[in-house]
Amino acid sequence: MTAYYAQDIHGPFETFDLGDFDLESGDKIRGLKLAYATFGELAPDKSNAILFPTWYSGTTNILESAYLGEGRALDASKYFIILVNQIGNGLSTSPSNTPAPFNAARFPKISIADDVRAQRRLIAEKFGLEKLALVLGGSMGAQMTFEWAVRFPEAVERAAPIAGTARGTAHNRLLVSTFIEAIESDPAFDGGWYADGAAHRGLRRHARLFAAAGFTPDLYNRAAWRSLGFTSSEDFLTGFVEAHFLPQDPNNLILLATKWRENDAARRFGGDIVAALASIKAKTFVIAIEEDGFFPLKDLAAEQKLIPGSELRRVSSIWGHLALFGLDPGYNRAIDTHLRELLAA
Amino acid sequence: MTAYYAQDIHGPFETFDLGDFDLESGDKIRGLKLAYATFGELAPDKSNAILFPTWYSGTTNILESAYLGEGRALDASKYFIILVNQIGNGLSTSPSNTPAPFNAARFPKISIADDVRAQRRLIAEKFGLEKLALVLGGSMGAQMTFEWAVRFPEAVERAAPIAGTARGTAHNRLLVSTFIEAIESDPAFDGGWYADGAAHRGLRRHARLFAAAGFTPDLYNRAAWRSLGFTSSEDFLTGFVEAHFLPQDPNNLILLATKWRENDAARRFGGDIVAALASIKAKTFVIAIEEDGFFPLKDLAAEQKLIPGSELRRVSSIWGHLALFGLDPGYNRAIDTHLRELLAA
Repeated sequence: MTAYYAQDIHGPFETFDLGDFDLESGDKIRGLKLAYATFGELAPDKSNAILFPTWYSGTTNILESAYLGEGRALDASKYFIILVNQIGNGLSTSPSNTPAPFNAARFPKISIADDVRAQRRLIAEKFGLEKLALVLGGSMGAQMTFEWAVRFPEAVERAAPIAGTARGTAHNRLLVSTFIEAIESDPAFDGGWYADGAAHRGLRRHARLFAAAGFTPDLYNRAAWRSLGFTSSEDFLTGFVEAHFLPQDPNNLILLATKWRENDAARRFGGDIVAALASIKAKTFVIAIEEDGFFPLKDLAAEQKLIPGSELRRVSSIWGHLALFGLDPGYNRAIDTHLRELLAA
Repeated sequence: MTAYYAQDIHGPFETFDLGDFDLESGDKIRGLKLAYATFGELAPDKSNAILFPTWYSGTTNILESAYLGEGRALDASKYFIILVNQIGNGLSTSPSNTPAPFNAARFPKISIADDVRAQRRLIAEKFGLEKLALVLGGSMGAQMTFEWAVRFPEAVERAAPIAGTARGTAHNRLLVSTFIEAIESDPAFDGGWYADGAAHRGLRRHARLFAAAGFTPDLYNRAAWRSLGFTSSEDFLTGFVEAHFLPQDPNNLILLATKWRENDAARRFGGDIVAALASIKAKTFVIAIEEDGFFPLKDLAAEQKLIPGSELRRVSSIWGHLALFGLDPGYNRAIDTHLRELLAA
């Protein structure tokens, strides 16, 4: 497991040590470390900082390769871009890298809000930032973006949640529960006390459930996986999707998926999502993927209407939710257009 | 298991004994029995016969309660309606009711074409019918309807495949594979040699995967399950969906799901779906559920265009694919409208 989460695969990254960190649940993490990577230079007036947290099962590495670049909206020659690994993703403090006794199945439960509170300390204590020009993220990164905009309205000038919602819907919770159950039901998972690599059947099953709803039916039916050099749907499911999840740690994935499932940016508003979203001060573009099977367009649109001065921006991709990975040039161009416009606003 | 598949729950039904029945695979069933139920009277000129086979995990009972009735399109005062249980559904010959040694995991693999060939013998030998005024069915019943129209074009005057395709798409095959794997991966399944009721964890998992894609996200998000008296999504998933599958036989379900997954009405045309669908002589209404997560509208529309003189009829329901069950009065009314028009054509 540790081999996969190493600098030579996912780096370079640095770590910021927050010491003991109190969680929303009342539990604490002893010695919380956030792994992050920065690109570009902070302007003297500190006006050009962008924060971009990771999504489920991703690391900052994929954010860099899929979204950053010269001439892209997120251009490090203009902006100071902080990519941050969420708690539990294997680079930041996680079940897989915490020493006993709080490792593996004993790792405390984390919320999206815990991540955002930790990220707030990172930008303040490490970089002296009070404000961010933009917070953006896809999927679970969108959940964090909403949490940022609701929790720290004065700190977020612009927000771009992509392919995610401020609060999980009942259907999304069901879907994520099936992912979790696919891993946990593997006898080799053994309540989280598996031997290294043993619970691969559950990971493979999880990968296929993820793939069935994460990509569009047309991705399979039109064999769009050909663009990646695969020979069949089966070959793609094994060589791309299983390959992505197999080296990852099952406890890490379950921690992340649980965080995803339980997300609710309205929790501090007593569950009042209307009040929570109305409190957002950031200029917000809610960016929806029209074919998204995880976070349907209509759910994003319903929330966007509740955010003052916000706009709904739609992109389309045969890759569905997993267009986030940056495999569709049309998606990448569309995202850049929307982000450029938002950054200019 | 046998308690569930009994006359007092699913009947009354009769059985037609086809003797030894050769399968497309080269295998055979010793003493194939089809369970069926009829409603109404056959007209003297035999012009009013309708055939309606079952879908996945359903029996003729649900077809009767959801689609037949006085004043409905399928009115037994006008038509002679034959509801037939597909092979493997627990009433017709199935893994669960076949004596050793060909029982359970040793039951031969069946194709949609096998069912249709057996049904052809039922209508000819039992009722002396050469022609059917209408063949219709939902989901796997739609697969059988297409097979009927392709295989016996002179025998089918009208066809109404609902919420199903003539050939499985790659995405549909993936989805059905996840259903099968959910059952088979239960250690208690034990390669099909489980103790009675032991493999319930796999059945429960299967039920939830089925429910995640079978209903629309809005069914959950708007709590439309309230109309059935459930208290939460969880309560609905357990009390309705798990309750539906738990009493069923895992080997039966896997047989049905495999038949579903491998369906291809173009097989006799060397896989040429264009030629297969062009050969249909029946007046055909392809009826699509707009929100269908199993059989998307666009896949039905693509096939419909290839059927001479056919029409695409669309219905909408928050129940998605599982509107087939007849729980949505709006769906039921829309289906009746389309079927009435087809029967008048």
